[in-house]
Amino acid sequence: AAMAGWGWARAVRGLLLDVSGVLYDSGADGGVPIAGSAEAVRRIKASGLKLQLCTNETQATRENFVRKLRGLGFDISVAEVTAPAPAACRLLKERGLRPHLLVHDDLVPEFAELDKMNPNCVVLGDAAENFTYANLNEAFRLLIGMEKPVLISLGKGRYYKETDGLKLDVGAYMKALEYACDIQAEVVGKPSKRFFESALAELGVPPEQAIMIGDDIVNDVGGAQQCGMRALQVRTGKYRPSDENHPEVKPDAYVNNLAEAVDIILQQL
Amino acid sequence: AAMAGWGWARAVRGLLLDVSGVLYDSGADGGVPIAGSAEAVRRIKASGLKLQLCTNETQATRENFVRKLRGLGFDISVAEVTAPAPAACRLLKERGLRPHLLVHDDLVPEFAELDKMNPNCVVLGDAAENFTYANLNEAFRLLIGMEKPVLISLGKGRYYKETDGLKLDVGAYMKALEYACDIQAEVVGKPSKRFFESALAELGVPPEQAIMIGDDIVNDVGGAQQCGMRALQVRTGKYRPSDENHPEVKPDAYVNNLAEAVDIILQQL
Repeated sequence: AAMAGWGWARAVRGLLLDVSGVLYDSGADGGVPIAGSAEAVRRIKASGLKLQLCTNETQATRENFVRKLRGLGFDISVAEVTAPAPAACRLLKERGLRPHLLVHDDLVPEFAELDKMNPNCVVLGDAAENFTYANLNEAFRLLIGMEKPVLISLGKGRYYKETDGLKLDVGAYMKALEYACDIQAEVVGKPSKRFFESALAELGVPPEQAIMIGDDIVNDVGGAQQCGMRALQVRTGKYRPSDENHPEVKPDAYVNNLAEAVDIILQQL
Repeated sequence: AAMAGWGWARAVRGLLLDVSGVLYDSGADGGVPIAGSAEAVRRIKASGLKLQLCTNETQATRENFVRKLRGLGFDISVAEVTAPAPAACRLLKERGLRPHLLVHDDLVPEFAELDKMNPNCVVLGDAAENFTYANLNEAFRLLIGMEKPVLISLGKGRYYKETDGLKLDVGAYMKALEYACDIQAEVVGKPSKRFFESALAELGVPPEQAIMIGDDIVNDVGGAQQCGMRALQVRTGKYRPSDENHPEVKPDAYVNNLAEAVDIILQQL
C-alpha cells in the first residue's frame, strides 16, 4: 500500500474489523492468528481509536466466539462484537416470528428465548456439518409449506477460507433455498445496511469517521462503502488477486494485512 | 379438462412423457405407479402413436431406470428413454472435458468411458445422499481453482416429490455453486432446447406433431413449448394448484393425470 493518498484517514476515530481472514484464519482446529493481528488490535486500543468487530460469524455464540479469540491472543470483549444472531433475534421478536433453525449447533443458545414450536420462518446460518441433505430438505419443506415463506439468512457470503481449505458459506445455501422456493431471503449481517448501522452505533462513531477493514470485497468493502464508510481490503484470508479487478467494488486502499493497515492509519493521526 | 378446444390434438403423431410425477411417484422404496399410467402407456402403443420418455432422471443408468419402470408394470425399452447423462457424455467427449462427478452412485457407470483424472469440469446430477457438505465443498474447490470454471448440470429442477415428501432437486445445488463461484452452469436436460430436440429426433416426429406431458410447469411445459410443441400439465407428482397462476408459462391444457390425457388425445384421432 502506497502511503500517498491516505490523507482522508486523518479524520478517523474508529475502526470496524472483520474477523475471519483479518484477525485469524478459522478452522476445525480452532484456527490460527494472522501474523501481527493481535499486536495490531493492542495498538489500536493504545492509540485511543475506537474498535468494534463486525462479523458474519454464526458458528458460535458471541460469548464462545470471544473466548476463542481471547485464547488466540486477541484483547476483545463481548460488547466489542457485532454479530448476526443477536440482530436476528431482535428482528424475530419484533415481528413475532417463530424460527426453525438451520444453524451450527453452537449457535442455538443465541435463540434460547424464542418460541420455536410450529415455526413460521426459517433462519439459516453457516450450519457447516449441519448442512446435510436431510436438513436442507427439511428446511425446504417447511418453507414451501408456508403461505408466505420467510427465509432469514445470517449473511450471504459465498465462501470463506479455513485452515484446511475454502468452504461454501451460508449465501450458497441461501441461494439454493431461494431458487427452490422462488423467494428472496432477508439478509441479517454484512452487507446489510441496517447491520452496518448497528455496528456503527455500537462503535459510537459516524460513518465518515470510521474505516471498515475486511477480506471480503463485496460483503465487507462494498457493504461498508454503501453506508458512507471508507473501506480497506486486506490481502489475507479469502482475498484473491482477481478481487482487484472487481467490476463494481473498489476499496479505498489495499493493505497486505491488518498490521500494515494499522501502521499506516496511526501514522496519519 | 374440458373436451372443447382440443382440435389441435388431431395432428399428433407422438408423445413425449415426463416420468417421475407422470408415470410414477419416485421414492427410496422404488416408488409407486400413478393409477392408470401403466395402462395409458399400453394404450398409447396400441394406438400407433409414437412414444418417448423425456426425463431429467439422474439417479440411475438408463438400463437400471428402465428395469425399475418395467418392474412397476411399464412396457418401456432403453431406446425409448431420453435422459441427461448420455447427452452429457456426448458433450464431454466433443469438448475433451474430464469430469469430476457429483452425482448419484448409481449414475457413475454412465461416465465409465471418460477420463476423470485431473478434472477440468464438474458434472452435477441429482446426487441425493451424495449432496453432503464435504462433497459440495470439494466440487466448489475444484471449480474455484479452475482458470475458467465449467459446471455442467444435469437438469435445473427446483424440487420433486418422492413418496416420503418433497426433495430439493439438482437445480438448487446448481444455484449454490453458481453463486459461490460467480458462474453460470450449462444445463443438459430439460428445459434445454437441445435436449428436447434430441428427444424429438429419437421420437421421429416434428415438434408440431408432438405433445409433451409433464408435471413440471417450467421444465416440462415451458421447455417443450419453447421448442414448438404443445404441452399438457398433469395434476399429479409435484403439481401444485398455484402452478395454474404461473406468470410466464401456460400449458395448452391441464389434465388430472396421464390416463385422462391419453383418453382425450385418443378420442381426437
